[in-house]
Amino acid sequence: MVGAENVLVDDAARLARATGLSYLDLLRRRSPTADFPVPDAVVLPADPDEVQAVLEACVRHDVGVVPFGGGTSVVGGVAALRGGKTAVIALDLVRLDALVSVDAESRIAVLQAGVRGPEAERLLGGHGLTLGHIPQSFERATIGGFAATRSAGQASSGYGRFEDMVTGVRLATPRGEWKLGVAPASAAGPDLRQLAVGSEGTLGVITEVALRVRPQPPVRRYEGYALPGWAAGAAAVRDLAQHHALADVTRLSDVDETEVSLALNAGLKTTALRRYLAARGVRRPCFLIVGWEGTAHDVALRRRETARRLKAAGAVRVGKALGESWRHGRFAGPRQRDALLDRGVCVETLETAAYWSNVDELRDDVRAALTASLGRAIVMCHISHAYETGASLYFTVLTARDGSDPIGQWQRAKAAACEAISGLGTISHHHAVGVDHAPYLAAEIGSLGVEVLRAAKSVVDPTGILNPGKLV
Amino acid sequence: MVGAENVLVDDAARLARATGLSYLDLLRRRSPTADFPVPDAVVLPADPDEVQAVLEACVRHDVGVVPFGGGTSVVGGVAALRGGKTAVIALDLVRLDALVSVDAESRIAVLQAGVRGPEAERLLGGHGLTLGHIPQSFERATIGGFAATRSAGQASSGYGRFEDMVTGVRLATPRGEWKLGVAPASAAGPDLRQLAVGSEGTLGVITEVALRVRPQPPVRRYEGYALPGWAAGAAAVRDLAQHHALADVTRLSDVDETEVSLALNAGLKTTALRRYLAARGVRRPCFLIVGWEGTAHDVALRRRETARRLKAAGAVRVGKALGESWRHGRFAGPRQRDALLDRGVCVETLETAAYWSNVDELRDDVRAALTASLGRAIVMCHISHAYETGASLYFTVLTARDGSDPIGQWQRAKAAACEAISGLGTISHHHAVGVDHAPYLAAEIGSLGVEVLRAAKSVVDPTGILNPGKLV
Repeated sequence: MVGAENVLVDDAARLARATGLSYLDLLRRRSPTADFPVPDAVVLPADPDEVQAVLEACVRHDVGVVPFGGGTSVVGGVAALRGGKTAVIALDLVRLDALVSVDAESRIAVLQAGVRGPEAERLLGGHGLTLGHIPQSFERATIGGFAATRSAGQASSGYGRFEDMVTGVRLATPRGEWKLGVAPASAAGPDLRQLAVGSEGTLGVITEVALRVRPQPPVRRYEGYALPGWAAGAAAVRDLAQHHALADVTRLSDVDETEVSLALNAGLKTTALRRYLAARGVRRPCFLIVGWEGTAHDVALRRRETARRLKAAGAVRVGKALGESWRHGRFAGPRQRDALLDRGVCVETLETAAYWSNVDELRDDVRAALTASLGRAIVMCHISHAYETGASLYFTVLTARDGSDPIGQWQRAKAAACEAISGLGTISHHHAVGVDHAPYLAAEIGSLGVEVLRAAKSVVDPTGILNPGKLV
Repeated sequence: MVGAENVLVDDAARLARATGLSYLDLLRRRSPTADFPVPDAVVLPADPDEVQAVLEACVRHDVGVVPFGGGTSVVGGVAALRGGKTAVIALDLVRLDALVSVDAESRIAVLQAGVRGPEAERLLGGHGLTLGHIPQSFERATIGGFAATRSAGQASSGYGRFEDMVTGVRLATPRGEWKLGVAPASAAGPDLRQLAVGSEGTLGVITEVALRVRPQPPVRRYEGYALPGWAAGAAAVRDLAQHHALADVTRLSDVDETEVSLALNAGLKTTALRRYLAARGVRRPCFLIVGWEGTAHDVALRRRETARRLKAAGAVRVGKALGESWRHGRFAGPRQRDALLDRGVCVETLETAAYWSNVDELRDDVRAALTASLGRAIVMCHISHAYETGASLYFTVLTARDGSDPIGQWQRAKAAACEAISGLGTISHHHAVGVDHAPYLAAEIGSLGVEVLRAAKSVVDPTGILNPGKLV
C-alpha cells in the first residue's frame, strides 16, 4: 500500500530509527554491547491516507507502530518497544512533507507532519509567513513531533508554545480519522486539541497540523544584559512576564552558566567586560539574552519597554554581540555532545517548570540532587521560558563519565533529579514523557489522570498498536 | 454528612435550582402547564470534603448529581435530568465561598467553586488583585461554573478566556479527588486541565480553582469608535488582533445592533452624532467599544497604539460617553428580558466563533437561518472576542412571540441557527454544550471525540451519577 520501495528492512535503516538523541541513546549507540530494541521494518507512507491504511494493516497483523519524525526525542519517545505485539515498525513520516494550505486572512497554515523546522519556515516564507517555532531541535524535528510532544521554542515568550499555535489536528487512528479544531476558541466541551497535542503517538498518528502563523519579521534584534546574581535575574524576568514586557526570546542564565559563557565565548572581551560590569555593581553576573522580532516600529516600542524595566531591575546592558552570539550558536548544543562524549564527558540536559514561588527551591533541589548523585559536576541552569505565573528551568550537567557504568551513572542522577522535581514542578516543560518520565506521570496528573489517558487510548486504539510503552 | 439544615426538600428551594436562565427556561417557568424536571432535593455541602462525601453517598444510593453554581446556564446545563437514576439532587456549591490562598509572587489565587463573580473580585481586592473575568453573567455566576463551562469574559482580549486563567483544578469524583496543575506549562502528556475545564460537571464536581490573577488596575478607560460598515469594522478588529493591539475589551456591533444602540441610548445625542459621522464618511456606522485597564503608563501606551491602527482603518472616535455607557449597562441585558417577555417579545441570544475567513459567511448564514425560521425579526450581531485566527459572533434576536407555541417557535429557530453554524464555526464560543448543544457536538469533535469523553467519564464516574444527560 505504500510501495515496496517505501518499506525498508535493512539494518542501517532500522537502526537509524531505533532511538532518539538522549545522552543514554548516544551511549547505547556507541557501545558494542548495549542492547536496545530496533524496529522490524521502516514504513514510509506518502500521505494521510496511506498512514491510515498502514494503521489498519497493523491492527490486522497485530503490529506495533512507532511514529517517527525527526528522531530528536531525548526521553525515549521513539524507542522501538513492541509492547507484546508480534512485530513493531517505525512509521517514518518524512514523506508527509507538504504545505497543505494557507489561509492568509485567518493567519492559519496547514502543514503535514513530516515537515522539518527549516522546511516549514521555507514553505511559509514563500507566503511571507513564519511559524516562529525555534526549539533547539529545530534543524531536524518535525511539525508532527512538535505537536505530539507539546514542544516549546526558544522564542515561546513571543510566539507561544507549540500548543498555542495549533488550531487544528488531523490524526490517523486504528478507528479511523479524527479531526479537531473548528474555531480559535470554543466552549463546546473540553478542548480535545489539548488531548491530541502531547499524546506522543499514543492516541493517533498526527498527519496534519493547522497552525497559527505570522508575517515574517522584517527586524530581528537580539542583545544581552547582565544582572547581579540569580535572585535579581529571576526577579527581573518575573517582572517582565507579569508586566507583559517579555522579549520574544527571554533567556536568563544562572551564575554558573554565565561563567561558562564567559570562559568559552570567544566573541566577548571577558576581562574588560567583567571590569565594566563590576564598576556597575554586577560582580556575579547572570547573562540575560533578549530578542525581539517584528516590524521596526513594534520592535522599537517593545524594546524600549523591556529596557526600561530591566534598567529598574539593576540590569546592565552588555550589547548586541552577546545576543547575536547566542542566536548564531542556538542549535550548537546537541552537536557539541559528540565531541564531549569522545573526551569521556557525561553531558546531558533536563528541564522542568514551576510557579514562581517554587522556582528557587526547585533549582536548589535539582542542583543538590544532581551533585549528590554525581559528585564533582558542573550543573548550569537557565530560565528559557517565562510566564506570568512561573518559569521553566533548564539544567545542563557535565561530569567525568564513569567508565565502568556510564549508563547507570546517569540513570541514578536523572532519577534523583526527577525525585527532586516531582511535587515542586512538572516532570517536563518541553521534552515530553516518552519512556523516561513515565514513572513520574501519575504523581503529576493523578492515577485518575493516567486512567483517563488509558481510557482515551482504548477508544481510538483498542488493540494497543500505537507507540507501545510510551506516556502511559 | 452536610447537616440536616443543608438538605432542602421544599418546593421553592427545588424549583429555584431546576433550570438555568435561557429564554426557554424563562418561558417554562412562566407557564402554568410547562413540564420540566425538578431536583428531588437540594444539598449544600460546606467544603470539598463534604462534596466528596456526598458523591460517595450518591454512588451508594444511585442518585444523580447536578452541580449548581449561579444557575445562569442558557443551554440546559443545570436541568435536573436523572438519566435513569432513582433520584437526582441539585448539589448547590454556594457554601464553598472561600478564598483559599493567595500566592502573590506567582500571581495565583485559589478560590472555591461557589464564589460568585463580585465576591471573587471583593476577596481578591483585599489583596490588591483582580481576576478580570467579567462575563455578562458576572453578578450571579460562580468560579466553578466559569471553569465547568469554559466561560469567556467581556475583557477576554486583555485578561484571556477563563481557561487561560486556570492554573489548577480540584475535582471531587466518585472515584476520589482529582487534582491537576503543577506548573504554568508542561509537556508531561496532554493538558488534562483542559479536559476538566469545560467538562460541565460530567467528569467531576469542581470544588476549587487555582487562577492566575493580576494587580487591580488603577486606570480603566472605555471609549467608543464608529466604523463605516461591518466589513470595515471586522477588518479593523482583525487588524488589531493580528497586530497585538487589541484593547482589553474589544466589541464591534454590526449595523443593526448599532442602530438599536442609537435608538435606545439616551446618553447619545443621536442626530448630531449621525451628522458628525456622516461628515467623516461613516454613513452606516458600526460601533466599536474599546476599553483598557492597567497602569496609567500602560493604558496610555496601548491606547495610543490601538488608536493609531483604528484611525488607519477609517474609524471615527465617538468618545468616552459611548464606552462608559456600555460599561455601566454591561450586565443589564439579562435583566431586560423579563420586561420584554411581559410585552410578548421572543428574545434570546446565541453565539459562535470561527476563523476569520469564515466569519462573514457564518454571520450571513445564521442571520438568514433565523430570519427564514422566524419571519419578521430583528437579528443583531457583534464580535465580542477576537483572536489572531478568528472571532466570536454573538447574536441577539427579537421577534413577536408566537402565542400558541412559543417554545416550538424558538426551538425551530435555534435548530436552524445551529445547523447554519455546524461546519463553519463552533457550536458555542462561551455558553457551553449542556443539553441544547449536545446534538451538534459529534459534528464538531467527531464521534471519536464523543467516545473519548464518554470513556473519560466512565473512569471517574463509573455509575454515571454526574450531571446525567449533559455534554455527552
